[in-house]
Amino acid sequence: MTRSLTTVESRLRKQKPDSGQIPFGRTFTDHMFVMDYEESKGWHEPRIVPYEPLTLDPAAMIFHYGQTVFEGLKAYRTDDGRVLLFRPEKNFERLNLSSERLSIPPIDEEEVMDYLKKLIDLERDWVPEFEGTSLYIRPFIIATEPSLAVAPSKMYKFMIILSPVGPYFSGGIRPVTINVEEEFTRAVKGGTGMAKTAGNYSSGYQAQEKASKEGNADVLWLDGVEKRYIEEVGSMNIFFKIDGEIVTPALSGSILRGITRTSILELLKEWGWTVNERRISIEELYQYYEEGKLEEAFGAGTAAVISPVGEFNWLGKKMVVNNHEIGPVAQKLYDTVTGIQRGRKEDDYGWTVEI
Amino acid sequence: MTRSLTTVESRLRKQKPDSGQIPFGRTFTDHMFVMDYEESKGWHEPRIVPYEPLTLDPAAMIFHYGQTVFEGLKAYRTDDGRVLLFRPEKNFERLNLSSERLSIPPIDEEEVMDYLKKLIDLERDWVPEFEGTSLYIRPFIIATEPSLAVAPSKMYKFMIILSPVGPYFSGGIRPVTINVEEEFTRAVKGGTGMAKTAGNYSSGYQAQEKASKEGNADVLWLDGVEKRYIEEVGSMNIFFKIDGEIVTPALSGSILRGITRTSILELLKEWGWTVNERRISIEELYQYYEEGKLEEAFGAGTAAVISPVGEFNWLGKKMVVNNHEIGPVAQKLYDTVTGIQRGRKEDDYGWTVEI
Repeated sequence: MTRSLTTVESRLRKQKPDSGQIPFGRTFTDHMFVMDYEESKGWHEPRIVPYEPLTLDPAAMIFHYGQTVFEGLKAYRTDDGRVLLFRPEKNFERLNLSSERLSIPPIDEEEVMDYLKKLIDLERDWVPEFEGTSLYIRPFIIATEPSLAVAPSKMYKFMIILSPVGPYFSGGIRPVTINVEEEFTRAVKGGTGMAKTAGNYSSGYQAQEKASKEGNADVLWLDGVEKRYIEEVGSMNIFFKIDGEIVTPALSGSILRGITRTSILELLKEWGWTVNERRISIEELYQYYEEGKLEEAFGAGTAAVISPVGEFNWLGKKMVVNNHEIGPVAQKLYDTVTGIQRGRKEDDYGWTVEI
Repeated sequence: MTRSLTTVESRLRKQKPDSGQIPFGRTFTDHMFVMDYEESKGWHEPRIVPYEPLTLDPAAMIFHYGQTVFEGLKAYRTDDGRVLLFRPEKNFERLNLSSERLSIPPIDEEEVMDYLKKLIDLERDWVPEFEGTSLYIRPFIIATEPSLAVAPSKMYKFMIILSPVGPYFSGGIRPVTINVEEEFTRAVKGGTGMAKTAGNYSSGYQAQEKASKEGNADVLWLDGVEKRYIEEVGSMNIFFKIDGEIVTPALSGSILRGITRTSILELLKEWGWTVNERRISIEELYQYYEEGKLEEAFGAGTAAVISPVGEFNWLGKKMVVNNHEIGPVAQKLYDTVTGIQRGRKEDDYGWTVEI
């Protein structure tokens, strides 16, 4: 069901970035999508309007109790000028899962998909064409009721904003160094780790700064209970190639169910790899490393698609993986996923949606 | 150091609530305090302005990554018409501790105290006089930089808004029923539990709704690691009187350091009670209950001051405390703290600040 969508076109058009060197998430397009929720009306008044500031009461609940969820996906430009989304239905499915955990009313996934397509269609010229660039899509819901009572909001705003972004790493993929975080905790069983909600991100800044000071690009989080089991990297799920097999942490309730993660699991299985989704501790990983069995490591997420890990730092010990070089599995996954996303490879899986 | 404070008085004055029946956190006064932060300028432009909506970019980081902290305190009206704050310096001290965890730049505590006093002085007539009422004070900081990069914001807004509030429970204090939460987790070691930050609150809504459906007023949180050790109640710290001694969970890093908690610990020690700040498991509590040694239980927080617990529900087992009646320790603490707050008892501790 699609309610009547109102579109108010912007009279002014901003200048579009003219190169592939666009800093992440600082430039926004001419329009955005907005829809409101009130208890008596449900989600209502879907509209595409000029990108403009929000006006909210200082008591709006988003400022006080963090009731909010978000998503991140991308629109890609193909060589022949078409615009493709990558499995966008998975993002709205996950948005509703996140909302359930945060006591936010669900959206109609099909309806919102229709609005997203209309928004991207209107902003089609904003999808950049340079190698590695894309149009980042940020759907999010915030609690807007002006009340300091610690209870679910009765009013929400759902929005989609769009930002042209450059390649995550300039010059294609290159292996990064990751710090294994022992002090801070990202998430714990019974918490909000599986949800894409604001509080999960700023809570990692201290660990991120510490890692960065010591020359690491990101943080590897361990489980919050035993501080042993590997969960995820900063903004990505993590994969290992150990003694010829693929290992990735099983979704424990505190790990984000990545859409790139799901996709590469499907690819790896189709390619005949033995894939183990299971608990793996940092001690176990280190043991494989010492035995020479840790053959590859890479993160998987929307931002970088595939990001090889060249080195892990763990309590003063170093694990250098594949001599700091990109491994063949990471390279093939990167080429395949980005190939499908940019229309260079046949999409045998029905993963792309053309706008 | 106090920078020059600008005050813009509101030309319109709202009608003040005319009874003690004021719903919590929905009515706001005529003015608010605002101050901004930018990397190059530090905190700047402190101002008291009419209470009005905020205008923020949809990409403002508060909407995406939850980088925010807050405080809660109250101004009380004495019988002879004076206005008192209760240990406000402790709130700004704690605000800075919360900010450190969230990578937010610290405020100058003394400077901000001065602004708070000026704001309360201007809004003096808003401090209600009915029994049990007060003017709730909500200082908060939000990240305002428009950027989707997952990193600390370079811009913040510090605000103080004020809301006249009724008594937490109408008719004075009465014992409540609390559910011991086994499924969801509030906080874990290495997480943000000791900080007053938005994400800690909405993450409890699911547990709160579940508890409420089963007739409970609130949730007792257990530690996130072993799910055994008692941490805190929804919005309060928890105290027990066991076999003639006082027991409260030690600050573990995941428990909020309540200012009411600190104050009643000081009172209890002065009154000669043996006070044990230590780890206490739910099983241990139940054993004391079965032995008839659980004599009192009560929460302590800014909202209700002291809230006796009449019953705990734990995995289908009930612990009825003091026959659902207010115990003498809870009553004496309530009378003493509220007496000092409202100027009816001598403030021997220098806890109150007159405006």
